[in-house]
Amino acid sequence: MNIAVYGWGQMGKLLCDTIDKSKNLNLTGIIDAFSSGKDHRIVETLENLSVVPDVLIDFSHYSNSEKILPWITAHNIPTLIATTGHSGEELEKIKKASQVVPILKATNTSLGINLITELLETLVSSLEDWDIELIEKHHNKKIDAPSGTAQSLLTKINNTLSSKRELIYGREGIAPRKKEEIGVHVVRGGSIVGEHSVIFAGEDEVIEIKHEAHSKMIFVNGALKGATWLYNQNPGFYTMKDIFN
Amino acid sequence: MNIAVYGWGQMGKLLCDTIDKSKNLNLTGIIDAFSSGKDHRIVETLENLSVVPDVLIDFSHYSNSEKILPWITAHNIPTLIATTGHSGEELEKIKKASQVVPILKATNTSLGINLITELLETLVSSLEDWDIELIEKHHNKKIDAPSGTAQSLLTKINNTLSSKRELIYGREGIAPRKKEEIGVHVVRGGSIVGEHSVIFAGEDEVIEIKHEAHSKMIFVNGALKGATWLYNQNPGFYTMKDIFN
Amino acid sequence: MNIAVYGWGQMGKLLCDTIDKSKNLNLTGIIDAFSSGKDHRIVETLENLSVVPDVLIDFSHYSNSEKILPWITAHNIPTLIATTGHSGEELEKIKKASQVVPILKATNTSLGINLITELLETLVSSLEDWDIELIEKHHNKKIDAPSGTAQSLLTKINNTLSSKRELIYGREGIAPRKKEEIGVHVVRGGSIVGEHSVIFAGEDEVIEIKHEAHSKMIFVNGALKGATWLYNQNPGFYTMKDIFN
Amino acid sequence: MNIAVYGWGQMGKLLCDTIDKSKNLNLTGIIDAFSSGKDHRIVETLENLSVVPDVLIDFSHYSNSEKILPWITAHNIPTLIATTGHSGEELEKIKKASQVVPILKATNTSLGINLITELLETLVSSLEDWDIELIEKHHNKKIDAPSGTAQSLLTKINNTLSSKRELIYGREGIAPRKKEEIGVHVVRGGSIVGEHSVIFAGEDEVIEIKHEAHSKMIFVNGALKGATWLYNQNPGFYTMKDIFN
Repeated sequence: MNIAVYGWGQMGKLLCDTIDKSKNLNLTGIIDAFSSGKDHRIVETLENLSVVPDVLIDFSHYSNSEKILPWITAHNIPTLIATTGHSGEELEKIKKASQVVPILKATNTSLGINLITELLETLVSSLEDWDIELIEKHHNKKIDAPSGTAQSLLTKINNTLSSKRELIYGREGIAPRKKEEIGVHVVRGGSIVGEHSVIFAGEDEVIEIKHEAHSKMIFVNGALKGATWLYNQNPGFYTMKDIFN
Repeated sequence: MNIAVYGWGQMGKLLCDTIDKSKNLNLTGIIDAFSSGKDHRIVETLENLSVVPDVLIDFSHYSNSEKILPWITAHNIPTLIATTGHSGEELEKIKKASQVVPILKATNTSLGINLITELLETLVSSLEDWDIELIEKHHNKKIDAPSGTAQSLLTKINNTLSSKRELIYGREGIAPRKKEEIGVHVVRGGSIVGEHSVIFAGEDEVIEIKHEAHSKMIFVNGALKGATWLYNQNPGFYTMKDIFN
Repeated sequence: MNIAVYGWGQMGKLLCDTIDKSKNLNLTGIIDAFSSGKDHRIVETLENLSVVPDVLIDFSHYSNSEKILPWITAHNIPTLIATTGHSGEELEKIKKASQVVPILKATNTSLGINLITELLETLVSSLEDWDIELIEKHHNKKIDAPSGTAQSLLTKINNTLSSKRELIYGREGIAPRKKEEIGVHVVRGGSIVGEHSVIFAGEDEVIEIKHEAHSKMIFVNGALKGATWLYNQNPGFYTMKDIFN
Repeated sequence: MNIAVYGWGQMGKLLCDTIDKSKNLNLTGIIDAFSSGKDHRIVETLENLSVVPDVLIDFSHYSNSEKILPWITAHNIPTLIATTGHSGEELEKIKKASQVVPILKATNTSLGINLITELLETLVSSLEDWDIELIEKHHNKKIDAPSGTAQSLLTKINNTLSSKRELIYGREGIAPRKKEEIGVHVVRGGSIVGEHSVIFAGEDEVIEIKHEAHSKMIFVNGALKGATWLYNQNPGFYTMKDIFN
């Protein structure tokens, strides 16, 4: 399968390295307006690609979607969009394009993270009267708190609950817990790659679901699994959830 | 709601104590052929009950089902059967009775345990190529290994997998892991009430789902939740899974 | 061994019940000015005790120390003081009394908690350049955050470090971690009895030391172990640390 | 500081790469009889080194000690021996050489693993009447069970106990726990780098001490920390324990 990669950042590079080492996959081009010359396969625009790929994977920036959508609809290229931050209007354009060409829109390409996000729906709806707390752990260089993944999990939890709960980012002093809150605990230390744990605490029992990432390769592997799956789909708007079913 | 309890063992007693403390529930009789006299409400057979209850909960022994089924069908009493060990033939009789009266058959009445059992279906089918291991922890007096709950979880896992895996109860020496095995680890120590953890280990990521029981009350609370739910159902054969939906 | 218990609160009652069930220990009196009549063994003051005990255990309130110290020095009764909140001046009086009679002063009578507090000294001094974070979990009724035990652990950590670190009770937004901080995470949910975990995160490795309490009995058991040990000691000021060595 | 590395295996290479990237350390030679030519700095014997180093680090094979000892005593080179498997007689020779030159003998160069090994001495001797269990987790390619590190931890535990306990590598069937046993649980799955957890279970409380390795770099970093420390020591036989004090 011929793949083109949009974006030569940290994730894009790792993705290209992985495709290079793969037997069945073939990297036929990289698009990055700011990195031309750093790799001989890098071109500035989609139009400059010498080979039209079977699939496009976008790990660049949401603002590039406006260039990507016309091109993939014109050439009928199934595309994995792994960037985040699109406005409602931009999302509408992506959905419109997906009527013509299969598009997989992923906020996180890790299979594991997508899977536990799905499980949360079952857990939360079955345990509406239990307390929920989230702990996430990352390395000491990470500057945002909580992680984007934790925010996605929390959004999923709150969207599943019959009434939304308030997020509490720490407790100190006389701080009685309210039923309508979710404690969010951001641990930072050493070189921890990433852990997310959601705790459901009821009367005399606790359920915990935990995901540990040991390297960024989980995002690459999930992206390639998604892209391979997407290649065989009909036009449509897909999310990572669909590739499990 | 009027409840009769069949079986005055450890779980039966705890159940009766809990009903006694409840505002909305009313304990109208206890059936136990071996304990008459120990509590003034205990009678030897169902026929001796002075009040026909709204619901019957059976925490006795599977062999009593042959006495229970005719009586509950005759009196139309929704019944939670929380005993295990029935033969295939006996199960058929329970199912036949459930055409007339609602029957909830539970191998484990803890809500949490039933919930994670359900989640395993999604996890296992989505992660067919990941390694699976199970760790369970109980107090140092427990003599069976692994626990009945662990066995149920393992059965669920193997029934969901497209091809069954072999259960391995320990590793020592030169013991390379085979893809087609599940490691089962039985920790025993101190007064630990009960922990069950299923670990899914993939390439660079691990998902763990864990249940901790802090007291046997979780079985009583789940039984009462189940019985209350059952009271409003049509005739049918139900499992704990149904009360989540 | 004859024991008198000062204080008929939650811990005092549990302690008395445990002594009553013991074969080797004998409860010869309870002192509580506010509970006389609730148990036939309760008296209002130490002077009213009909039997002078071998050992006194104080689970009442720090303000009672002024009554306890003159009496135990006069009668030479080894005493476990398990209350907290004494001023520097009051502590000096306790230490002075301990020149005459053995006194065990405990801020927490759980053996396990005292042990991990000691271990922190070794861990912290060996891992000065690692990041430290603390997570504690308790039930949803607990109103103070963090727990008194967590505060003791943090004090031990900061007293061992060559330069004290700032305690951070939560992270949200753009919140880069400083080297000189300790993240303190207070989880509240369900009926969790009590967990304390200290995490040391270094380059590519993490050490975690965790204590789980499953019931308040650990404080009673530790108190009785301490009192039994104290009975055979010479006059002196002791802490729980001493009973390990 | 000039360092020579004996052994160009997996660990030796990682060590050399790390020294190459370091500012303060200088790799002046590699000794490996089977790899000459693979790196221009590799020589076959110690005698072929063009520069006599300040420190030697041996990550090769215990059988090379007979070549290493005469050379380091002749040239007075502090040496870290990070190989295992020496016979009692061979160990005696190492100790004899250490009368002339500082030798650090490490079975495991990770700081964290050495530290928790030390902590076990305090834990085990303080909790003689608690149950002990060990869980270790590694990737699915590892063929030996339990890991060498787990074996070291177990040896430390048994050497500290007043009476040795039997190691049990799994439980199945009717398997009541004996007081005099330690359960050893070997989890294998995915690409887990390495986790070791020792569990102390008492009455109503559990203490757990856990070490997680996220990469093999922890062995390299510990080796370099040890070698740097060793350079300033007097002749003597040292272990990793000494570098904490």
